Amino acid sequence: MKSIFGKLALTLPLAAAFQGHAQQQRPNIIFFLVDDFGWVETSLPFGDEVTANNRMFHTPNMERLAARGAMLTNAYACSVSTPTRTCLMTGMNSAHMGITSFSSLYKDIVPDAIGGHPGSTNENLGDIFAHPEWNYNCLCPAHLESEKDLYGLHHTLYATPLPQLLRDSGYHTIHVGKAHWAPAGTPGSNPYNMGFVVNIAGAQNGHPKSYQPEDNFGNLPGQGDYGSVMNMSQYYGSGVHLTEAITREALRTLDHPLRQGIPFFLYFAHYTNHTPIQRDDRFYQRYIDEGLDEGQAKYASMVEGMDKSLGDVLDFIDGRGIADNTVIIFYSDNGPHSVGGEKGGELHTQALPLREGKGSVYEGGIRVPMMVCWPGHVAAGTRLNTPVNTPDFFPTFLELAGVTDPQTVQTVDGESMVKLFTDGSQYVARAAEAGKIRDRKDANAFRIPESVSGLADDRGLIFHYPHQLRYEDQDDIDFLSALRRGDWKLVYRMHTGELELYNLRDDIGEHSNVAAGNRELTRSMASELSDRLRHWNAPMPTVRATGKPVPMPDETDAFAALKK
Amino acid sequence: MKSIFGKLALTLPLAAAFQGHAQQQRPNIIFFLVDDFGWVETSLPFGDEVTANNRMFHTPNMERLAARGAMLTNAYACSVSTPTRTCLMTGMNSAHMGITSFSSLYKDIVPDAIGGHPGSTNENLGDIFAHPEWNYNCLCPAHLESEKDLYGLHHTLYATPLPQLLRDSGYHTIHVGKAHWAPAGTPGSNPYNMGFVVNIAGAQNGHPKSYQPEDNFGNLPGQGDYGSVMNMSQYYGSGVHLTEAITREALRTLDHPLRQGIPFFLYFAHYTNHTPIQRDDRFYQRYIDEGLDEGQAKYASMVEGMDKSLGDVLDFIDGRGIADNTVIIFYSDNGPHSVGGEKGGELHTQALPLREGKGSVYEGGIRVPMMVCWPGHVAAGTRLNTPVNTPDFFPTFLELAGVTDPQTVQTVDGESMVKLFTDGSQYVARAAEAGKIRDRKDANAFRIPESVSGLADDRGLIFHYPHQLRYEDQDDIDFLSALRRGDWKLVYRMHTGELELYNLRDDIGEHSNVAAGNRELTRSMASELSDRLRHWNAPMPTVRATGKPVPMPDETDAFAALKK
Repeated sequence: MKSIFGKLALTLPLAAAFQGHAQQQRPNIIFFLVDDFGWVETSLPFGDEVTANNRMFHTPNMERLAARGAMLTNAYACSVSTPTRTCLMTGMNSAHMGITSFSSLYKDIVPDAIGGHPGSTNENLGDIFAHPEWNYNCLCPAHLESEKDLYGLHHTLYATPLPQLLRDSGYHTIHVGKAHWAPAGTPGSNPYNMGFVVNIAGAQNGHPKSYQPEDNFGNLPGQGDYGSVMNMSQYYGSGVHLTEAITREALRTLDHPLRQGIPFFLYFAHYTNHTPIQRDDRFYQRYIDEGLDEGQAKYASMVEGMDKSLGDVLDFIDGRGIADNTVIIFYSDNGPHSVGGEKGGELHTQALPLREGKGSVYEGGIRVPMMVCWPGHVAAGTRLNTPVNTPDFFPTFLELAGVTDPQTVQTVDGESMVKLFTDGSQYVARAAEAGKIRDRKDANAFRIPESVSGLADDRGLIFHYPHQLRYEDQDDIDFLSALRRGDWKLVYRMHTGELELYNLRDDIGEHSNVAAGNRELTRSMASELSDRLRHWNAPMPTVRATGKPVPMPDETDAFAALKK
Repeated sequence: MKSIFGKLALTLPLAAAFQGHAQQQRPNIIFFLVDDFGWVETSLPFGDEVTANNRMFHTPNMERLAARGAMLTNAYACSVSTPTRTCLMTGMNSAHMGITSFSSLYKDIVPDAIGGHPGSTNENLGDIFAHPEWNYNCLCPAHLESEKDLYGLHHTLYATPLPQLLRDSGYHTIHVGKAHWAPAGTPGSNPYNMGFVVNIAGAQNGHPKSYQPEDNFGNLPGQGDYGSVMNMSQYYGSGVHLTEAITREALRTLDHPLRQGIPFFLYFAHYTNHTPIQRDDRFYQRYIDEGLDEGQAKYASMVEGMDKSLGDVLDFIDGRGIADNTVIIFYSDNGPHSVGGEKGGELHTQALPLREGKGSVYEGGIRVPMMVCWPGHVAAGTRLNTPVNTPDFFPTFLELAGVTDPQTVQTVDGESMVKLFTDGSQYVARAAEAGKIRDRKDANAFRIPESVSGLADDRGLIFHYPHQLRYEDQDDIDFLSALRRGDWKLVYRMHTGELELYNLRDDIGEHSNVAAGNRELTRSMASELSDRLRHWNAPMPTVRATGKPVPMPDETDAFAALKK
């Protein structure tokens, strides 16, 4: 295994390098967003141990990026795509937006499994719960609210999108890949409306109909649908996989701002590694040779294709000499798909040692790989363990771009991570230099004071999924809410009314519910979760039998029982 | 009828206004390109008379633009779409490019009627001629020639595209609408590769599968094909016609360069008025009420939708206060479709008084409506009769943008029209002020000296269509070449070997072949046409019986007979 910590000696002492930040021109920002990509689906271990899941993957360029920057080992996202992606645009918690599930391909279609999907049998929790009144037409930029009658818009959140603020401050804003903020037939499906100057391949679709050029990425005549990837027709029949194709196109868009001397914001959102799980021929055979099953090998080849794209980005910024003034952030929109079987292996194991995967508010669904690289500002080879969540990106990007007084119609829930990235990573680097961090386990246990990072270690982070992911019940995925606060994690199971408490420091796999032994803490966290959900008017499922919403955590029998 | 000449008094004297050009910042450029739009399909008469065809249409915004600027009454294009559009990118004559017919939707498919179309019966001239070895994979930007193996490219022209030169000089280059430079599966299908920073709705397709939002512009699931319009999914089901939708999107793209203070080049290429002929509900009923047949009324409603779009552009630049530093050029890619019947009326009459329509090198196929507006530089309400051709746009746009030494891999055939637009229009305005131009007929007969316009009135302009447009023979469309020089027009009919000569001043309808009475001139022009085609290695059909190319005009029996 490659030692991240072996690099530390090379990158220290760092103190001198972190001066002069204020004089520099505003940095370029590359946001490298991967889809359905789990915390352990990489040869770069974010946890204490190199696990079986880590060993299935080869991601040398993620290792390369980690060596140049910081890994965020407690980074969170929403448990499914659209909530994370709209949150990136708005800085609002998913429950606050009322956008709690993924966008359908077409407007007015409720995509969750309760009653929405054609052919749903409803022989599941849908018999018990009806879907909440959520914003299933998802996000519309606030400046187009005046046109809502044109589109017949309802069940929609209006907010001021991040790229618009960046663009209006002078950034060249580029969208590449998956958008998935809103369905076709609404303005939110169009990246231009979000404030992007350039769009490549982004629209309403949450995954490509196909990654393969021989399928024209889904645009075979008579076979296309709203999931077909737009704008990529030059690669039809070319032999170039979608992941490679959008990488080439993404890098070409940078010529213009570089020539103009304008800072750029590249929102590079890979379609991969979402279903359909299709092999990337450049990398597939290695994984078969290493003994993976066909589904696993296909998936691992997609991951390596994504990793190669990351390497191309790094090569590009190195080649253009802009690495020192470019912030790269690596992130995933939710945990790994762990149901359905396309990825091979055993179901529900893809995130191990984390519990469950995509859709779930257990760690497997929401804890995602994240890295930040900014030479001279972020100390290389460090780990930052302060919990961060998707709403934090909005103020972070604005601070990086020097936008000090953004005018938004929405109230932003996140807090800037810039101080954590810079001062926090330098604090960690100094601790390592002083011998206080000797190995990965030390690094993962090391805490950065709020006075350094600007972020409280025990901020309450809320995750809320009042939906059913698939037709069949998934008890550890469907209808769950959670609050993380410090080491503690409260999980509310709406379908049973149970309250669970886990200590993530001791029990990252969420095996041992310790609510009974921590009644006061459980009640306190249940109250906090309830108060926040009420304050946001968060969507809650309706109980069909009563016609009433599912009770808040502090309205349950379980909550009352904790008082005794 | 609205009098263009009534406006002249208001806009004169102009001399003072045309100073100080050099001090001004580089102008914005809006190139408003309409598809298959004939010289007479407007209520704005370009000819001497208001004809029956003029009376079918209502285009008040074309009249408005004409009153602000100059009409070019002898403006030419190629007889079909892709040659004109690739010529706009390269500045090369279609015969020089070897791109002499329209691009297919998919690479390696020869789209012309000889053998290319599936189901072709070949019971036509295809029995006599085989298609030439033309560049049917059309245009690829020169900087991507290195990737030709990736796409399996052949039969392709490599050239340095205009938008790339403008972008690299600092222009914000925007593509909206129809591209149609090359088929899917090749880099030329992608506007970004041409040097556009922004693309809306442009790809390989030469027409939309549908203009109607209820058809999702062709993207109904399971019905899409390579002609479906990309990027417009926000308008699916919205009730907004494609022409209106792309206008809204086009104008929104201008916010960014205006805010940044960067000049923009907006290449606004409407899909309309190409087939499918579909009614624009906003305007249709008026034309039925006026007695047009259904096809005519549909078509006229599409034209009025286009005209409304032009009005929106004018309102926008007025509203933003940028009219004085914005050059608007109005143009069509070829003459009106006059076969097939969708447009109603009698076939082959749509361009009258001009002969024939789209596809033909007779005037109906190649003489197109053109206008230029640039307040303070172009004298308002004027007519410029100097013949101009598509290759002239390339150097014109570069001169407007102040690009003085463009580096191109190709040899450009055109000449800049800027002096004609400015000095030429002012010369005309002064003549009108001096009473030398009293009416439309005077204006259409008025000649601008080369010393003023920079363009010789009798430059040789070449048109070359070595193809068959449809399965059935169209004698006045298929396999024709032409040379215009001054008032004279030579037409070479490849399938008969005939040489025809017309005097356009006396006979704009090309009714009277006067070759027999002007043998020396006919020979001279046939030699000029032959020399140019040979010099360019222009594609010529192959005679199936001999396996040899069709003879050049000066190799025909008709040419030899003229010597006697």
